[in-house]
Amino acid sequence: MPATRVLDNMFHPQSVAVVGASANPAGWGGSNFLNDLIKRGYQGNVYPVNPKASVISGLKCYTDVKSLPEPPDLVIIAIPAPSVPQLLRDCIIRGVKNVHIFTSGFSETGEEEGRKLDAEITAIISNSDLRVVGPNCMGLWVPGSKLTYWGGAPKGAGGLALLSQSGGHGEFLTMYAQNLGVYFSKIISFGNARGLQAIDYLEYLAQDPETKMIACYFEGMQDGTRVTQLIKQINKTKPVFVWKSGLTPSGARAVSSHTGSLAGESKIWQAFYAQTGAVPVSSLEEIVDMALAFMYLPPATGRRVLLLGGGGGNAVALADICSREGLDVPRLTEATRLELNKFIRLAGNSVRNPVDAWSAQDMPEIFKKTLELTVNDPNIDAVIFDRHVWGEEDNPERKARFDQVNNDIIAFCKQNSSRKPIILSLMGVNTFADSVKLKLEVWQKFTLAGIPAYPNTLSAARALSKFIAYYEYLAKQ
Amino acid sequence: MPATRVLDNMFHPQSVAVVGASANPAGWGGSNFLNDLIKRGYQGNVYPVNPKASVISGLKCYTDVKSLPEPPDLVIIAIPAPSVPQLLRDCIIRGVKNVHIFTSGFSETGEEEGRKLDAEITAIISNSDLRVVGPNCMGLWVPGSKLTYWGGAPKGAGGLALLSQSGGHGEFLTMYAQNLGVYFSKIISFGNARGLQAIDYLEYLAQDPETKMIACYFEGMQDGTRVTQLIKQINKTKPVFVWKSGLTPSGARAVSSHTGSLAGESKIWQAFYAQTGAVPVSSLEEIVDMALAFMYLPPATGRRVLLLGGGGGNAVALADICSREGLDVPRLTEATRLELNKFIRLAGNSVRNPVDAWSAQDMPEIFKKTLELTVNDPNIDAVIFDRHVWGEEDNPERKARFDQVNNDIIAFCKQNSSRKPIILSLMGVNTFADSVKLKLEVWQKFTLAGIPAYPNTLSAARALSKFIAYYEYLAKQ
Repeated sequence: MPATRVLDNMFHPQSVAVVGASANPAGWGGSNFLNDLIKRGYQGNVYPVNPKASVISGLKCYTDVKSLPEPPDLVIIAIPAPSVPQLLRDCIIRGVKNVHIFTSGFSETGEEEGRKLDAEITAIISNSDLRVVGPNCMGLWVPGSKLTYWGGAPKGAGGLALLSQSGGHGEFLTMYAQNLGVYFSKIISFGNARGLQAIDYLEYLAQDPETKMIACYFEGMQDGTRVTQLIKQINKTKPVFVWKSGLTPSGARAVSSHTGSLAGESKIWQAFYAQTGAVPVSSLEEIVDMALAFMYLPPATGRRVLLLGGGGGNAVALADICSREGLDVPRLTEATRLELNKFIRLAGNSVRNPVDAWSAQDMPEIFKKTLELTVNDPNIDAVIFDRHVWGEEDNPERKARFDQVNNDIIAFCKQNSSRKPIILSLMGVNTFADSVKLKLEVWQKFTLAGIPAYPNTLSAARALSKFIAYYEYLAKQ
Repeated sequence: MPATRVLDNMFHPQSVAVVGASANPAGWGGSNFLNDLIKRGYQGNVYPVNPKASVISGLKCYTDVKSLPEPPDLVIIAIPAPSVPQLLRDCIIRGVKNVHIFTSGFSETGEEEGRKLDAEITAIISNSDLRVVGPNCMGLWVPGSKLTYWGGAPKGAGGLALLSQSGGHGEFLTMYAQNLGVYFSKIISFGNARGLQAIDYLEYLAQDPETKMIACYFEGMQDGTRVTQLIKQINKTKPVFVWKSGLTPSGARAVSSHTGSLAGESKIWQAFYAQTGAVPVSSLEEIVDMALAFMYLPPATGRRVLLLGGGGGNAVALADICSREGLDVPRLTEATRLELNKFIRLAGNSVRNPVDAWSAQDMPEIFKKTLELTVNDPNIDAVIFDRHVWGEEDNPERKARFDQVNNDIIAFCKQNSSRKPIILSLMGVNTFADSVKLKLEVWQKFTLAGIPAYPNTLSAARALSKFIAYYEYLAKQ
């Protein structure tokens, strides 16, 4: 059986055992996994394992894995580290194939005892055909299988996979991405990676029809050459976003305390990005930024960006940010400027680029004419509309125009016949509760309608520049 | 009379005339200035000037400045650009000393007509003793004088002055800063600067007892050598934050469309920062970040930072960000680690640095012991506490602990006997409306209590690093 078929069984198990679930749990652990399986409607067989209980959460509890009525498709291990080696041996005897070791306390502690336990489980795993996720990790989060016993409740399934040595990152990402319409095929928190490696998961995700984009959070890397080759291959059809952490001196020390990994050298990773064309990211927010771009935008053909904003100082800031992110902000053609000047007055505005015209933010008709003219300018390859969001609640007439322009933006982007990427940045330097609330609502409105919208200009410019770089890389292959 | 005394009269006028106020205003302009003066409770005499009306907003309206009953301390000009030269001549005849030209349509348009008008008013101004703010700007925003006819309503007066070639920047800053307890002495939007120059305002602010810190937004610069010398001098006692925009190719073009300024060269501005010790900033948010640090922190003595956070991947991200911002994240001493290990268990946590321990976020007792031990570690000069904010509303017991830890943080920082700077970053990668709301509330709670709190780790690390750099500069003088 090919390795990917075998892993299918792990991502879509018919039965799950939770070793270390407890009737009286102290702290976060096995019982949370168990209870959330039930709560989220997991349909397969669920087996709590604990020698000290007969029933947990209404389910019959088993003394050990050997006494289970069937070898479960997945065993989740949440018992103290010193007991893990024997449990792995028991799993092998019982014919278990897939194991997730949640337990921490191995080499990442930096202590002698942890390192010894680590060596012991590594030996057991490598001498068996056990497929092991972890240890020291949150494991699998798979909406399609209702394996979502950590992180935010699934709001749907989608095309983004996350492969992460940090479970916290996966958890936070579910709570950030889903409200913006970015849903997941699989999230894999694989921690210290003493069994399955990045390469194994990547091979699986490469052929997984549910997965359209792959985000990776790496602290260390085994088998770097093969991973590089594989990511280069995958990235041609499924964009791969790679967050490599620990490349600073302090970060490298933190990596060794977290997953016991060796962070590697900055130079090597620069070569990795150059060779693979993978999109470099450095935060969870940026993973979502990139996912939104790849989900909704037509392919990029150039770096010449139109900036449509409001406010002179703000226009300069926009242009500076875009320039620093490697985007060009060229002058519009004379023809476009003359047309714009017919309905945008000269004083207090600018129709060069950035186009600084409050009326295009506030008046639906002006907005439409401005966008149509500028998007189709031959000097322009892509558009950032810096959409101003403030509290309009005290002026119903203005709020109605604000809503109308937002609807028109969505309609325009949906029908975008120019096939040029158009994205929004949400401008709102404002700490009033109403404005902050409105900004979040508008952000969700745009993203849920399929328009890449970003919480500030820097995110927007950076995402667009990296999106363009992806297509530049493809064009050179 | 010294120049600064003369300017006092402009910042604190006993009478204001608004030329171009209208009984039936179209668009934003003179009438807004007039009406907001009344609304905000300005106590001096207010004179609308417009030949086409006899009463505006309940006030007697005058045909022209020459017919005013007294030479007003400040004349606000909001009439079309072609009429401005003659009005300036009339002001000189009437003995007016202080003028704010709101009107735009001069050299910033890049058109021949604007340039000619610009030359004309520049000649009039330089041949008179008129003190002119602008043109093409919002003018003065002075809470102490109730001259706050643009921007957010004043919530108080404070120690931050803003000198800005962009009025929009001033406006947004009032709506961002004040809710975080950062209040202003003066905001000066000076646009194209054809009359009073940066140097004039800086000389005034240098001796202004209300002003404790000065933020500058510059697009261009006249008289660079004198400004550099002056800022170097001021910065020794009043920290000066300087945002120089337009240093990228696209930004420079945008600057010329905005205020018609020449943006200057990047190299020259690097020398400016090195020579003056001014704090380089590049956004409005960063101005507030720096103000919070200087308002509340004891002087910095070193770059060795303790990071207190939760989550292993997050700890690595914190360390990477700090390293990139030039901060050190050294290991804690063995003695501190042994003490921490007495109440923070090894598995799933780290007590090296970053200190990764969810219990210190969640349990008031653990928080206190952790902070006391780590802050006083001899390897540590300053602290960033990455405070995790999520929605706790569904769990009253947890919410109570969350509130308790927040109160304890405030108490600890207030009594901070270590005299080491302690700042907070608010960690909340989360787009749920409740969490976003809670994060804003917590942010305000901390900042209004006098604790520098930042919306994310990058802002926190960057602000702390620049704060430290300021004291490093002073130490070298």
